[in-house]
Amino acid sequence: MSRTAMSQHTFRDPGAEARVRASFAHQGLMATLGADLILIAPGRVEIALPYRPALTQQNGYFHAGGTAAIADSAGGYAGFTLFPANTDVLTVEFKLNLVAPAEGDRLVAVGEVIRAGRTLTVCDLKVYGERGDRRTLCAAGMQTLICVPERP
Amino acid sequence: MSRTAMSQHTFRDPGAEARVRASFAHQGLMATLGADLILIAPGRVEIALPYRPALTQQNGYFHAGGTAAIADSAGGYAGFTLFPANTDVLTVEFKLNLVAPAEGDRLVAVGEVIRAGRTLTVCDLKVYGERGDRRTLCAAGMQTLICVPERP
Amino acid sequence: MSRTAMSQHTFRDPGAEARVRASFAHQGLMATLGADLILIAPGRVEIALPYRPALTQQNGYFHAGGTAAIADSAGGYAGFTLFPANTDVLTVEFKLNLVAPAEGDRLVAVGEVIRAGRTLTVCDLKVYGERGDRRTLCAAGMQTLICVPERP
Amino acid sequence: MSRTAMSQHTFRDPGAEARVRASFAHQGLMATLGADLILIAPGRVEIALPYRPALTQQNGYFHAGGTAAIADSAGGYAGFTLFPANTDVLTVEFKLNLVAPAEGDRLVAVGEVIRAGRTLTVCDLKVYGERGDRRTLCAAGMQTLICVPERP
Repeated sequence: MSRTAMSQHTFRDPGAEARVRASFAHQGLMATLGADLILIAPGRVEIALPYRPALTQQNGYFHAGGTAAIADSAGGYAGFTLFPANTDVLTVEFKLNLVAPAEGDRLVAVGEVIRAGRTLTVCDLKVYGERGDRRTLCAAGMQTLICVPERP
Repeated sequence: MSRTAMSQHTFRDPGAEARVRASFAHQGLMATLGADLILIAPGRVEIALPYRPALTQQNGYFHAGGTAAIADSAGGYAGFTLFPANTDVLTVEFKLNLVAPAEGDRLVAVGEVIRAGRTLTVCDLKVYGERGDRRTLCAAGMQTLICVPERP
Repeated sequence: MSRTAMSQHTFRDPGAEARVRASFAHQGLMATLGADLILIAPGRVEIALPYRPALTQQNGYFHAGGTAAIADSAGGYAGFTLFPANTDVLTVEFKLNLVAPAEGDRLVAVGEVIRAGRTLTVCDLKVYGERGDRRTLCAAGMQTLICVPERP
Repeated sequence: MSRTAMSQHTFRDPGAEARVRASFAHQGLMATLGADLILIAPGRVEIALPYRPALTQQNGYFHAGGTAAIADSAGGYAGFTLFPANTDVLTVEFKLNLVAPAEGDRLVAVGEVIRAGRTLTVCDLKVYGERGDRRTLCAAGMQTLICVPERP
C-alpha cells in the first residue's frame, strides 16, 4: 500500500493517537523487548526494535518472536487508529513470511490497514532490517483484527 | 495430531536432542522471556513460558508476540528433531489464530510435525494457557520450516 | 483433533444438517467441480471430489484451487453445524499448506471446528488424496469463519 | 507493491512468457472455470474470471474456491516468470483474507512477487471484483512458492 493509498484513512476518534500511546505504554512486552513507537498515522503505525543479543535466535539474528511481536503491535495499532472511541483491538490471527534473516542495527515493523470494517479489519505487515541507510525487507505478513468494546 | 500419530517419527540423528538443547540455549530471546524447554520427542517439542507482567499486552494477558515466540521455537525444534546431522532449521512462515485470551500461570506451546520433507517440513502449533490443573487452548497455528546446511 | 474431541460438539439447531444440505445445493461451484457432501456431524463436515482432467493443474494433479474450494466449504459447513438458526456463515480467511501432490481417485476434505465462538469460529482443514484403500495427506490448513444474520 | 517496485524484476529466461502461456493452457481447472490470463510481466501476472452462476457460493457471490484458484495461479505464474529455464513452480502454501463479497462482472486476480529467492519465492495476492469501471478489493493474501526441476 502506498502513502497515497494511506491518505484514504482518517482518525475517527480525535483521541486516537493518545489512545495508541497509552495502550502501547501498557504493553509490558514492548518495554521488555525495548521497542519504540516511531510513527502513528491514520491506518499506519511503525514500531522499531534496536538490536540486542537478548533478542536473538540461535544464529544471532533477531528471533522471529521479536519480529512477530512488533509486527503484531504495529498492525494492531494501525487498525486501532481507525476505531471509534470506547473500543479496544484484539488480534484474531496473523501470518508472517520470514523472507530474509532479520538483522541490522534495528528492525522496523510497519502495519498498514488494507481494509477497515466495522467488526473486522485487515492489515498488511512488513518488517525491515535497517543497517545505517540500508533497509532490507525481512518479513511480510497479514493480520486480522477485531474491534471489541473497551473493558471498564 | 495424536500421540499415536507421533510415533511415526524417529530421530534421524542420535544427537538430535542434544542439538535442540544447545540451539535453544543460544536463543537469547528465550532467556529474555524466561521460556523453558519442557519436552523433546521425535517430531514434538514443548516450551513453557511462566507469567510475568513483563510479557503482557495492554490488558494484562500474555502479548501475542510471546505466544508467537514460543510457538515458533516449539515448531522449529519439533522439525529439527527429524533433520539429519549437520543441518539447521529456519522458519519459512507461520500463521497463528489467537482463539482465546492468553492467560494463566504459564503458557505451554506444543509444536508437532504434520509432514516431514527433505527440504520443507510442516508443523502444527498449539498454545495453551495453564492455571493449576486447567489447560485452555489460546492459540492454534501452522508453520513451514526449511532444512538448511549448518553454518560453520 | 480426534474423534473424541469432536464429541464435545452438538448441533445447536436441530435443523442444522438440513440447512447445510440446502446451502451446499446452492453452491454452483460445488456442482461445477462435481463435489459431494459425504459427512455432516456436529463440528465436522467432509466433502469428496472425484478426479477429472477438468480439475487439474499443469502436471495433471488436482489444482490447488479445487483443493481449496472443497477445504473451504468443508470447514465453512463444519462451523455452520454449530451456528444457531437464522444465521449464515462467511469465511474470514483461510490458509492452506500443500504438503504433497494432490492426486488419487478422489480428494476428501475434512473440516473440523477447533474453537467455536459466538462471532468467530476456527476450523482445522485437511485434504487427503485417496487411491483405493490408501489415503495420503495432501493439504493441511486453518480457517476463520464469521457467523452473520441470515439474509432474507 | 507499486508498479515502480515491479520494475526491479526482469525475466531470467527469455522464454518465460511462452512457458507461462503453455503451462496455463495445461491447467484443466482454468478452462473449467473459464479463467483468462490477461497480463504477464516480470514478477506480475493477472488472471480474470467472468461471472457465471456455475462459480457461486450459497448467496450467489463467487465461491472462495474460484477466488483462490485464480489467486493461486496468478501468484504461481508471477513467480514462474522469474524462474530459470528447465524449472517448474509448485505452491508451498497460501493464505487468503476474504475482505468483501466477491461480486461483479468478473474477478481479477493479481499476483506479484514480493521476494524472489533461489528456492523459495513469496508473492502478494490481491483479487478485485470489477463491475463496469469500478474495482473493489475482495481478497488479499500471500503465497509461498518453490522452484523445482522441470519434470521430463
